[in-house]
Amino acid sequence: MAIITLGTMAFDAIETPFGKIDKIVGGSATYVAYAASHLTNPVQQISIVGNDFPEEEMNELKSRGVDLSGVEVVPDQKSFFWSGKYHLDMNSRDTLVTDLNVLANFNPKVPEQYQDAKYLMLGNLMPSLQLSVIEQLRTRPELVVLDTMNFWMETAMADLKKVLQKVDVLLINDSEARQLSGEYSIVKSAKSILKMGPRFLIIKKGEHGALLFHQNEVFFAPALPLEEVFDPTGAGDAFAGGFIGHIDHTKNISFENMKTAIIVGSAMASFCVEAFGPQRLKEISRKDIELRLEEFVQLVNFDISLV
Amino acid sequence: MAIITLGTMAFDAIETPFGKIDKIVGGSATYVAYAASHLTNPVQQISIVGNDFPEEEMNELKSRGVDLSGVEVVPDQKSFFWSGKYHLDMNSRDTLVTDLNVLANFNPKVPEQYQDAKYLMLGNLMPSLQLSVIEQLRTRPELVVLDTMNFWMETAMADLKKVLQKVDVLLINDSEARQLSGEYSIVKSAKSILKMGPRFLIIKKGEHGALLFHQNEVFFAPALPLEEVFDPTGAGDAFAGGFIGHIDHTKNISFENMKTAIIVGSAMASFCVEAFGPQRLKEISRKDIELRLEEFVQLVNFDISLV
Repeated sequence: MAIITLGTMAFDAIETPFGKIDKIVGGSATYVAYAASHLTNPVQQISIVGNDFPEEEMNELKSRGVDLSGVEVVPDQKSFFWSGKYHLDMNSRDTLVTDLNVLANFNPKVPEQYQDAKYLMLGNLMPSLQLSVIEQLRTRPELVVLDTMNFWMETAMADLKKVLQKVDVLLINDSEARQLSGEYSIVKSAKSILKMGPRFLIIKKGEHGALLFHQNEVFFAPALPLEEVFDPTGAGDAFAGGFIGHIDHTKNISFENMKTAIIVGSAMASFCVEAFGPQRLKEISRKDIELRLEEFVQLVNFDISLV
Repeated sequence: MAIITLGTMAFDAIETPFGKIDKIVGGSATYVAYAASHLTNPVQQISIVGNDFPEEEMNELKSRGVDLSGVEVVPDQKSFFWSGKYHLDMNSRDTLVTDLNVLANFNPKVPEQYQDAKYLMLGNLMPSLQLSVIEQLRTRPELVVLDTMNFWMETAMADLKKVLQKVDVLLINDSEARQLSGEYSIVKSAKSILKMGPRFLIIKKGEHGALLFHQNEVFFAPALPLEEVFDPTGAGDAFAGGFIGHIDHTKNISFENMKTAIIVGSAMASFCVEAFGPQRLKEISRKDIELRLEEFVQLVNFDISLV
């Protein structure tokens, strides 16, 4: 039993108020895999790269229990490339360049040995490709998690609404929740989105934490107050990887355990933003993760019996 | 032993996306008193009103244990009047009218029977008046809490910096923390402000909750996700009233107990925004408060032993 993850494996060029990097490995599936593989394995990757994706990166992922047999390598093309510049508040950014390259003709194929996966993490990608992976699986996974973004709401809303009907958990940020629902209030947005298909909705609010909605219940996960957010790229994917990694590690999809999974996801996101690219996700140890989780416990711990 | 509260008692005219009201009782001290008196008494009020402030409002406050002997009534003038219009996001507003009236010549005097107060809540008001009250007290209260706003940073920064050196707890919102410190990062802002005098700093983030900073510790209090914020006026004052009311009720100024006090303050703020003016703070019962506190416990409760 395992997790299947679908998403991009790519190169990014990133500029933040703290620095600039011309080329670093990125992509939603890369971040998900690095985060999830701290918690469980195998992580069964579905993605596409060109002839330029580094051999050592592939080996690094394999050494962490990431199965790359679902990653197509196109010999005569380049990997997807994205370039962006963050504003001072780090919550907004301008996309400078998007070179689809191999992504233009990506047609994800689920390898036979992935068929029994218990959990499916659909990373941020065209909704039609996310749907294709769901449809290729002969047995529906116990939990299907979907990450998406405003870009797909603007360019592929019909496909997105179709795939929403087939997932259990949706991960989006607060402005995307407003866009998808047409409601300004986050609580009203959540109620509206929970009627579109997903049973669980996670609304990410960056430095303000995340909310989990399910039926009439709500959980508020804090974000760790950080002195500096060095590079937010991939934080949402690291969150997703931590979330699904914890779910697979514990094999428990209750609301209670999803709360813990969100804290694990938040911890992974808090590491991710400390350096450019997935660097910190590669460096951290089990001990680092445990200490970080303890920080989250302390952060929100209070004694109401004092009232 | 008691709390002294300093602040305005006033009339407001309020417009929000949900409605409009031409004249309703308001003022920072009014909200603080209504919130705090649910938790403790007496609340020893210092304020000023004109000949138009309703007798029945005074009686209502008195019946809740609010001592009004420090409230000056000016027979030939009107009470302070503020009028504002909230934007759709409810986090920003335009001030339409500010008629100082009695406030123009306010010179707060601490009545003799207030001299032994254990706690001092300096509600949002001119920093020079806040300082005057501190200086009139012969014995320094065990805890001095200061609320202020961006307006005083723009018009009376020198006075504000003077009073900051004499307080224990500062309450401000996130944009005010940035303005006061000149730092964009909230964590850096906090470090900088904790060098200006206060030992404790509470940064309110509206719907995103509040942060408490003390030495190297930090606590994150959630805000209750609400379907509708009907009228945010006075929410910050209700928070302050709940905070200081809990401190006086428990007579405990430890960091641990301040966390709980912030949750109590957040609960009071969550009631306050449900209707125009202090209406909801008048209506709620002890049972309502207990149920709301339990909602806060559930909201952030997670089990990290599952990791």
